[in-house]
Amino acid sequence: MKTAVTPTRAENFPEWYQNVIKVADMAENSPVRGCMIMKPVGYAIWERIQRELDDMIKDCGVENAYFPLLIPLSYLSKEAEHVDGFATECAVVTHHRLEKGEDGGLVPAAPLQEPLIVRPTSETIIGEAISKWIQSYRDLPLKLNQWGNVMRWEMRPRLFLRTSEFLWQEGHNCFETKEEARQDSLHMLDVYRDCIEDLLAIPVIRGEKTADERFPGAIATFTIEAMMQDGKALQAGTSHDLGQTFSKSAEIKFQSKDGEEKFAWTTSWGFSTRTIGAMIMVHADDDGVVVPPRIAPKQVVIMPVQKKEENKDVTGYCERLASALKEKGVRVTVDTRDLRNSDKMWDAIKKGIPLRVEAGEREMAEQKFTVTRRDIGRDSKVEMSFDKCVDAIPELLETMHHDMFNKAKSFMDANIHEVSSVAEIKAFFDAGKIGFVHAPVSVLDDPELEAVKKDHALTPRCLPYDDAGEKVIIGKSY
Amino acid sequence: MKTAVTPTRAENFPEWYQNVIKVADMAENSPVRGCMIMKPVGYAIWERIQRELDDMIKDCGVENAYFPLLIPLSYLSKEAEHVDGFATECAVVTHHRLEKGEDGGLVPAAPLQEPLIVRPTSETIIGEAISKWIQSYRDLPLKLNQWGNVMRWEMRPRLFLRTSEFLWQEGHNCFETKEEARQDSLHMLDVYRDCIEDLLAIPVIRGEKTADERFPGAIATFTIEAMMQDGKALQAGTSHDLGQTFSKSAEIKFQSKDGEEKFAWTTSWGFSTRTIGAMIMVHADDDGVVVPPRIAPKQVVIMPVQKKEENKDVTGYCERLASALKEKGVRVTVDTRDLRNSDKMWDAIKKGIPLRVEAGEREMAEQKFTVTRRDIGRDSKVEMSFDKCVDAIPELLETMHHDMFNKAKSFMDANIHEVSSVAEIKAFFDAGKIGFVHAPVSVLDDPELEAVKKDHALTPRCLPYDDAGEKVIIGKSY
Repeated sequence: MKTAVTPTRAENFPEWYQNVIKVADMAENSPVRGCMIMKPVGYAIWERIQRELDDMIKDCGVENAYFPLLIPLSYLSKEAEHVDGFATECAVVTHHRLEKGEDGGLVPAAPLQEPLIVRPTSETIIGEAISKWIQSYRDLPLKLNQWGNVMRWEMRPRLFLRTSEFLWQEGHNCFETKEEARQDSLHMLDVYRDCIEDLLAIPVIRGEKTADERFPGAIATFTIEAMMQDGKALQAGTSHDLGQTFSKSAEIKFQSKDGEEKFAWTTSWGFSTRTIGAMIMVHADDDGVVVPPRIAPKQVVIMPVQKKEENKDVTGYCERLASALKEKGVRVTVDTRDLRNSDKMWDAIKKGIPLRVEAGEREMAEQKFTVTRRDIGRDSKVEMSFDKCVDAIPELLETMHHDMFNKAKSFMDANIHEVSSVAEIKAFFDAGKIGFVHAPVSVLDDPELEAVKKDHALTPRCLPYDDAGEKVIIGKSY
Repeated sequence: MKTAVTPTRAENFPEWYQNVIKVADMAENSPVRGCMIMKPVGYAIWERIQRELDDMIKDCGVENAYFPLLIPLSYLSKEAEHVDGFATECAVVTHHRLEKGEDGGLVPAAPLQEPLIVRPTSETIIGEAISKWIQSYRDLPLKLNQWGNVMRWEMRPRLFLRTSEFLWQEGHNCFETKEEARQDSLHMLDVYRDCIEDLLAIPVIRGEKTADERFPGAIATFTIEAMMQDGKALQAGTSHDLGQTFSKSAEIKFQSKDGEEKFAWTTSWGFSTRTIGAMIMVHADDDGVVVPPRIAPKQVVIMPVQKKEENKDVTGYCERLASALKEKGVRVTVDTRDLRNSDKMWDAIKKGIPLRVEAGEREMAEQKFTVTRRDIGRDSKVEMSFDKCVDAIPELLETMHHDMFNKAKSFMDANIHEVSSVAEIKAFFDAGKIGFVHAPVSVLDDPELEAVKKDHALTPRCLPYDDAGEKVIIGKSY
């Protein structure tokens, strides 16, 4: 059977991924190395994630703020571990003017006294600012979040997953005690879990990163790990307990209730546009993207099926359903573009609009519509009366969310393999199997593991909460 | 009488402006030259503007997208006028790595083959991308908007008004015909007018910029000009008819209905965080900011007036009113912080929360509240019953919006002075008067004008629509 995307997932997963994005018109590479252009179809998904997650973050008592894009080089140098983690991949601003050169072309002029870095993350610049805002325990907790762009130079960029510039939110919270900071980093991870599971229908494993995989400068990094359809892991959000690392380097001090001067305890946590890459690799199929209904910018597309000449009554009939659904809070659109019926249908399929609702003259005469679910396709096609549509469509969207989540969950569960030794890990990946292995944490101390990790590009993904630190998940990853 | 802000507006307007922002805790300078930190109080206003303006822009059929932060130097060079307008003030990225230098400090490494510019505006990079998206007239109009940060190196930065990095939206629309582009640029200016007048209560004059004041590359620039309390102008939003300037430099071509290859006609339009500076300079007073009610993140603050020990009944009484107001869609907060009553009151005044509602034990016993309008102050203080509050407060917010708008409009109207010659313009500003002059457009051709403009730092602000091109507004400006 011909598919809208070639190659298929089975044929070549990485190429399929690039082509799904292309046929869905979500994003494209820009001429600036590693930077992507998010086209309206892709950006609209990010906007919906932003609005929903922003509300969730604000419900935690966090306020939004905005800090500078450019960070002085000396700030980065203050925190040694942080430098090692980020300094190899920064965009460096060295001049602040352009002038006409000898050949008439533009050349950089007016060198800066101190180079500036396009922020790869903002711990240092936010730390520096809040060290002046915080005087006493009364100023704590201080909870801040920033929506913005960051840059980490990528040698092997991939749309959404790994781009030199990406969009994200970065939270930076600051507390009196070690315990509060730990609790906050755990709580914010749960917010991310809720966002990705309840909105994007992507099941995740919550856990702690091993020491090697921590954020540079963190005393603990918590993560939600998702499994893509090729069995690889994608880290879909992280939350860091930064201990006093950054409060010491930026001198974030406060006077405690008993009059002592103390260093604060900080956390940071981020969620980025790479989640859209996860959404594609978890839910999309060989005909295109499948957007989870709760996050879909367009949840329903209604298509008047027209003969050569437009029948305005049919269009009006479709628009009446759209109005009724809008009143129920459904995000619905009527596709009245001057395109062939089959082109419209395939456009909706490739872009992954959750429900497709069609009506031609016959359906109108019978006061019916044909409804098709994107995740199931033609096998889900049903005829429904106008009134039934109004009631059933909001429910159908919810059902579809749960079905998509459960399908992804079953896939993940079926592809987590229990192993008890490094030899078993090796055997598993040598056999070309896909998925994660779930091993006793002791394998991490086995010197044999290093070679297996190297051969198969494996990393410890996390120590799942559920295992109370006794087991580790290992896999390939994006 | 002691004021919360010193100096006062009358004593030193520019210093007053800096201090208003400080006492209201809205923003501060960052250690990175010219870049500001928008603190939660200030950023929340931008967020509200964003949400409202975003809806208005989407209602025009425009879709959001996101293009790269960094622009290759060669793109900028393609459009000669554009280069002259922007090339002197860019942040230039020349390296993509940092390495440890000989002294152990970090130094830029890995020079880029072609330097990249942090976008000062995105006509060139968006033009380049859409030239590939547009094939035929069926792809037009193409209407895109981007929310993001831009950089224009500022030698004399001022918070909100002129910062090296600022936040804005930039719209980029593309049409088949010259007429459609012109109509679009005019229409988007009206959207800005609606936004600033109806939400920020700032009256503006719509007009066209003179040729010298146009956006580099535009064939016409339309502007909304507001008058600050010191009589200076602030350009609060601009919309550009770009003709075929950028479609020619970026080769944005399409096949017309009759099969010819044609260049498209484009527009661009932007609205930025400097509007918050306008809001302050139009409405704030010597006690702090006054936030226009429709845009205020917090429209009402309810304060339980407590004696030494908290009376939880009073707090509960205040919270009941808050719930009732929330149901009516009012953005309300109860200030239960452990602060002295007078500190809370002054905090609300300085931050400019439109309505302050207080209740202590006496008011609770009488089922009343004391309501005070921020714009009028103690003279507006009234006692209202609980039930009356629920009904009257939403209306009071609306009344306050209109009063603020009308006050600013009367001020502006009273300070636009009719003049008929350059000699009169000179006499007006030599006498130290404030405001705009409204002169016959012929003064622009008078060679004497140049010296007067220079002496008083004057610029032609616009040719107002209302004068059909026969008159010009001239003034000092931010």
